[in-house]
Amino acid sequence: MARRIRVVGIGSGDPAQLTPAASAALSSVAFVVAAAKSEDDPLLDVRRALCAAAGIPLVAVRDPERDRADPKDYPAAVRNWHDARVEAYAAVLEQNPGDVGFLVWGDPSLYDSTLRIVGRLADRLEASYDVVPGLSAPTLLAAAHRIVLHPVGKPVLVTTGRRLAAEVAAGHENLVVMLDGGLTCLDLESPRAWWIWWGANLGTETERLVSGRLDEVAGELREQRAAAKADAGWVMDTYLLRATAPQVP
Amino acid sequence: MARRIRVVGIGSGDPAQLTPAASAALSSVAFVVAAAKSEDDPLLDVRRALCAAAGIPLVAVRDPERDRADPKDYPAAVRNWHDARVEAYAAVLEQNPGDVGFLVWGDPSLYDSTLRIVGRLADRLEASYDVVPGLSAPTLLAAAHRIVLHPVGKPVLVTTGRRLAAEVAAGHENLVVMLDGGLTCLDLESPRAWWIWWGANLGTETERLVSGRLDEVAGELREQRAAAKADAGWVMDTYLLRATAPQVP
Repeated sequence: MARRIRVVGIGSGDPAQLTPAASAALSSVAFVVAAAKSEDDPLLDVRRALCAAAGIPLVAVRDPERDRADPKDYPAAVRNWHDARVEAYAAVLEQNPGDVGFLVWGDPSLYDSTLRIVGRLADRLEASYDVVPGLSAPTLLAAAHRIVLHPVGKPVLVTTGRRLAAEVAAGHENLVVMLDGGLTCLDLESPRAWWIWWGANLGTETERLVSGRLDEVAGELREQRAAAKADAGWVMDTYLLRATAPQVP
Repeated sequence: MARRIRVVGIGSGDPAQLTPAASAALSSVAFVVAAAKSEDDPLLDVRRALCAAAGIPLVAVRDPERDRADPKDYPAAVRNWHDARVEAYAAVLEQNPGDVGFLVWGDPSLYDSTLRIVGRLADRLEASYDVVPGLSAPTLLAAAHRIVLHPVGKPVLVTTGRRLAAEVAAGHENLVVMLDGGLTCLDLESPRAWWIWWGANLGTETERLVSGRLDEVAGELREQRAAAKADAGWVMDTYLLRATAPQVP
């Protein structure tokens, strides 16, 4: 019988936001593997707690270092990093029999490499795999602020901090920004022209929310981001940016 | 004590995809109100089933007709429709005391008018309101196809069928399309240039999935959409479109 790899979206990591389908998937596996960025990776603790509650062992795999020296060839750096992760996980899976779970913060469909890695692992190990969806970061952000992510009938561009300046230059007026390591939005040329709804550590005990006109809340954003990091030992933030008035094209 | 309005995302409507937080919110209200498009609206049945399981009464409110005669003034038509819905709900809430729940398919943050209506209802009735997030349609689509919604590090534009042609003309190469009443993608000029991952009635017993190069799966898309509608009595579909190769700018 082919082994199965289950990729499970865990939303914020709060058990109250884990769907019954995700709980059932977690309980169905022999063990969970999780990347650890360091010996005492605080992001591992949430996964440990979920696994402990379900009575499922967690095997931590030390995450390979990503080469950040050459940001010009970002796709190649990511590919090499993925290769190293596939090797590390394959070694663990070859030593441990049975179905295996990967717990993904938020949802596996946005800015997460798990599916790309699991697809390759499944090929290599002749395993099958499935995905159990979770609450995504934009969904958690919108709920916390009680907002819709777009004006009536308009689009929303979901993008990264790295791309934000270029997207704004291209005329986008409504953007959800993820993977932003440091409030890139504060470098925009016209902070008066933007409204922001920001959230850090969404859906956790250390959640912080800020909203307002970007120029007016810049200081508060920096403070609250630092406070979330101080409280939790880590910070992950997401935000919606919307032009306060239509931009000149 | 102020009454509370709770806006609850129910994902696909399958209880296995309802978070414990959403279940708790549903159980906490005196009753649920739901719009009914007709006397025997099949979309109402899922809400009825969830309410029955939780032992919470459901009050169906006949949905006002939306004026579709003048598509040129779409925002005004939507505003008038919202006004009429606010009136209809306010009448029901004034007759029925206690906290009230609104159950939203998918998540309230994308292409759903509930939050805009509830904000106005809360003002008018001096009620508070909160949002409990649910699995969004793009998340359900991605899980069913086991895909990430964007190429590595790239953005995804979430938009509507109505806007698709213009977004493609503007150069977008990776789009999630919602609110598309009839496979607008099949009208694109170069169907060979697009890959599609499509899903109807996602996460339900009548789910249908199709993926492939747009020109090659056009017939299958039409057939499967019709089949989903025949099976369920309704069809709601969402898809990801991605350029098969970078487009000439």
